[in-house]
Amino acid sequence: MLKEAIDHRPKNNYAYPYDDETLHIKLRTKKNDLERVTLIYGDPFDWTNERPNFYESSMEVAYQDDLYDYWFAAIKTVRRRTHYVFKLEDSSEDSPVIFSERGYFDSVPEDCPPCFFKVPFLNPIDVFNAPNWVKDTTWYQIFPERFANGDTSNDPEGALDWNSSPPSPTNFFGGDFQGVIDHLEYLQDLGINGIYFTPIFKAKSNHKYDTIDYFEIDPQFGDKEKFRELVTKCHERGIRVMLDAVFNHSGYYFEPFQDVLEHGENSKYKDWFHIHEFPIAYEPKPNYDTFAYEPKMPKLNTENSEVKQYLLDVATYWIEEFDIDGWRLDVANEIDHQFWREFRQAVKAVKPDVYILGEIWHDSMPWLQGDQFDAVMNYPFTEATLNFFARRTINAEQFKNQINQVLAAYPENVNEVAFNLLGSHDTARVLTQAGDDKRLVKLMYLFELTFIGTPCIYYGDEIGLTGDDDPGCRKCMPWDADEQDHELISFFQNLIRLRQEEPLLRGEGSFKFVKTEGNIVMYERLDQNQKIIVVINNQDEQVDFKLADAYQNAEYMLFEKP
Amino acid sequence: MLKEAIDHRPKNNYAYPYDDETLHIKLRTKKNDLERVTLIYGDPFDWTNERPNFYESSMEVAYQDDLYDYWFAAIKTVRRRTHYVFKLEDSSEDSPVIFSERGYFDSVPEDCPPCFFKVPFLNPIDVFNAPNWVKDTTWYQIFPERFANGDTSNDPEGALDWNSSPPSPTNFFGGDFQGVIDHLEYLQDLGINGIYFTPIFKAKSNHKYDTIDYFEIDPQFGDKEKFRELVTKCHERGIRVMLDAVFNHSGYYFEPFQDVLEHGENSKYKDWFHIHEFPIAYEPKPNYDTFAYEPKMPKLNTENSEVKQYLLDVATYWIEEFDIDGWRLDVANEIDHQFWREFRQAVKAVKPDVYILGEIWHDSMPWLQGDQFDAVMNYPFTEATLNFFARRTINAEQFKNQINQVLAAYPENVNEVAFNLLGSHDTARVLTQAGDDKRLVKLMYLFELTFIGTPCIYYGDEIGLTGDDDPGCRKCMPWDADEQDHELISFFQNLIRLRQEEPLLRGEGSFKFVKTEGNIVMYERLDQNQKIIVVINNQDEQVDFKLADAYQNAEYMLFEKP
Repeated sequence: MLKEAIDHRPKNNYAYPYDDETLHIKLRTKKNDLERVTLIYGDPFDWTNERPNFYESSMEVAYQDDLYDYWFAAIKTVRRRTHYVFKLEDSSEDSPVIFSERGYFDSVPEDCPPCFFKVPFLNPIDVFNAPNWVKDTTWYQIFPERFANGDTSNDPEGALDWNSSPPSPTNFFGGDFQGVIDHLEYLQDLGINGIYFTPIFKAKSNHKYDTIDYFEIDPQFGDKEKFRELVTKCHERGIRVMLDAVFNHSGYYFEPFQDVLEHGENSKYKDWFHIHEFPIAYEPKPNYDTFAYEPKMPKLNTENSEVKQYLLDVATYWIEEFDIDGWRLDVANEIDHQFWREFRQAVKAVKPDVYILGEIWHDSMPWLQGDQFDAVMNYPFTEATLNFFARRTINAEQFKNQINQVLAAYPENVNEVAFNLLGSHDTARVLTQAGDDKRLVKLMYLFELTFIGTPCIYYGDEIGLTGDDDPGCRKCMPWDADEQDHELISFFQNLIRLRQEEPLLRGEGSFKFVKTEGNIVMYERLDQNQKIIVVINNQDEQVDFKLADAYQNAEYMLFEKP
Repeated sequence: MLKEAIDHRPKNNYAYPYDDETLHIKLRTKKNDLERVTLIYGDPFDWTNERPNFYESSMEVAYQDDLYDYWFAAIKTVRRRTHYVFKLEDSSEDSPVIFSERGYFDSVPEDCPPCFFKVPFLNPIDVFNAPNWVKDTTWYQIFPERFANGDTSNDPEGALDWNSSPPSPTNFFGGDFQGVIDHLEYLQDLGINGIYFTPIFKAKSNHKYDTIDYFEIDPQFGDKEKFRELVTKCHERGIRVMLDAVFNHSGYYFEPFQDVLEHGENSKYKDWFHIHEFPIAYEPKPNYDTFAYEPKMPKLNTENSEVKQYLLDVATYWIEEFDIDGWRLDVANEIDHQFWREFRQAVKAVKPDVYILGEIWHDSMPWLQGDQFDAVMNYPFTEATLNFFARRTINAEQFKNQINQVLAAYPENVNEVAFNLLGSHDTARVLTQAGDDKRLVKLMYLFELTFIGTPCIYYGDEIGLTGDDDPGCRKCMPWDADEQDHELISFFQNLIRLRQEEPLLRGEGSFKFVKTEGNIVMYERLDQNQKIIVVINNQDEQVDFKLADAYQNAEYMLFEKP
């Protein structure tokens, strides 16, 4: 038994309340090292005849990655108080041993209550609690400047004809809200039921991540009435709307920053930013904090109470006035945790089931403990999926390991609402990454839409749009029928419909890899009563793949030949 | 290189801001497995000639326990943004390897920014920030019913003559505030500069953990004016005052609970508690949540906004009106985190340097991330120290391992203010645990007072008081000169003076074991310029113990023969 590999620490991905009465407990051990793990638990105060009462629950390996097994058990608490140890068994002589917070014992350390691991009390308010509708949502990400131009009268100066040239960091094509409204039927036919819009507030650039006014719609997209119409029409079609909150930094032309530029140390806004010294300088690097080293994006001082109040007002304004359903938080990891805690309180107070999605590319447990975000953009999922299907740099077993590592890193209720994406305005198009092989795009989206979490389709992926890294991935959506791959669209429609029709594929079913073989993966979505099996052959050759006897009564559904 | 043993996850004890510009990074590896570890870090956005800039910092083993090495580096951030990987070296052929958030690489994965570990931005508001004075404080815990009876006119009915009989769960001796005031000079002579009082609010029992009125002083102790006098006189002598906040549960005679008993479901206070069903019943177990299964201590519903506001008002009232300096939080681990976050905001708003100390007996990282507590009662320290010195169930090497495990489990700024104790009203007296051997009590307090953190002396330990578990450990403090061990008092005085005179022994010096041998431990408190060495011989025989040559110029101070 390799003790050095064994890991457990309560109140994160290893031990957490799943709901108001259920605890999930996980234990990490070396891969294939242990034969059996049993959770021994009880209420620390529950005694009979001067002996503590214990319950046992056998654990099972829920996930396995390249180094570790992750054992899992779900238990009901006793009076909501739980302390516990693990009984570890292998074939060696010293087996079984008891693993506790204070190390290893030969038997349950009944005389030492503080030796036990503890989830001291299950307080409902601390339970991670994302909106339920998210599990049933298939998102569609729209970069508004490039989705559709429905009203040429609001085109920005110098706007080019739609799709008349490749996207550049600075060119405009006039995409707007009317364009989205005009194509809501297309989106509904596709089957999506949530739109994530990159920023729509008044800004200078085509991407609008350099906000000038957080309380105004960018005029190239329309006005507030047009936006209200857009949200209303989305809601009428059962489509939820998520906006992009760029709170880490403002744009250069944001009035308070302009005031600082003009009045320097005398500006009443000087503490709204992080100015290292006056006068402000841009070379060799800006002498104020920015996004990256971009002088046009001065970092906001979210610890300043005026700034905080301003941004919280922004956050609640668009919910209260326009009934939006979610906020995606740009560069969320560089803003202080305290701000996000107050943000959550503020937006959930005005709309309890609003979805809070942070842009974080790396391990995000500190933001997903119930007090800050509901989800993050699951780029580790993206990387693993692209590596396996598009780039084919890893085999099925490695893919399984990488995906399992992501799943094991979070609580299950976090995984159920993770925002899974294959690409965005920040990455090369998935079709381009797949060497223009649409079959691979299909496999990737098949995986994404049958995986646990809430999937997102980047606008245009469904019609076969290509494009390199930004700005290449921000092409105009072509609306001429002969520029769209209708067979691909129909694939997406079927796939989304499948997800919508099968509760197991949405939030209800847990996820488990069953088998990998070369470049073939087989996995299940399951609950206690039934399961859906998916087998994906990610190689060019057709193969025979035998299901185990246990599956002989399964109903088959051949989704598509690769 | 044993990869399974290697562990790192940012934003807890492994990576955290130590202050507004310094990051601490730790890495766990198998004990004695690696020869060298180098931290390779930079600002993710800091590039020159299209190549990212990196800095290197060699790490050193700060702590070692029975299984692991804990490598440490302190770095200054670049524009407060940090991403990093570890270069791991041993004598094997595949060395060095790079350890990242996405596993192992042969070289620094420059092309994969999300592969790096990240502390994305050092926001000062998120820095764990306990009051500085705590590091300079030597605490003295007073159980007011048993410290001194200075005013017999307020004795509770049936109070016994002072020290006339052993303490029982229900007897009273009339200890009060006047008694404390009468002995402030004694306490000042002893050298302590902080008093932690167990509960003083109106309650039924002798321990007062069953509050009747959180806004009233228990009449047996005096009144509010007497309490004000006590606080003022403490402050005049440079002694800070910490009270006990029993917010997990009220007493049975707390008016809102009495109202529920009287009016049942119609009580306006019915949601102040966790009543499972009406009418209320006590058998076989209370049908409402309680502390343990004690019907006299109904658990308060701290998620209820009225209860929350009531308790936050209590918390700020005693600070604002009486200028207390700290709150010790009873059964802190069973109250929701959200309550404690609001508690911190509320009390720090009225007194920014108030000390928040949680009663938690187990691993407490989730409460010590800057948003909740400043410290917890360090019972794991207590256990290890008693096991080595008093019970002698572990040798010096095991003691070192256990203490290092506690230190490694937390950030350094948390360790610097940890509330270290050897006993309390909840545990058998340290002298009794040491088999009445006062030499061992001296060694333990020598260790506690030269250790990192803020030490506490349980009233009476300094005069040689004995006592078993509660109620035995709650004896009356004897004030007759011939009942006090003056040689022991003088030892405590010298020890406390030593700590007060040497900044390195307080918060300024880090802690490091240097050597163990049988039952001898040697450790250092040090900063970059100097160090204090302590060698403790925890065995009955005198021994020769050679210091390394490096210490040959040290000044010697033989504190005491054991």
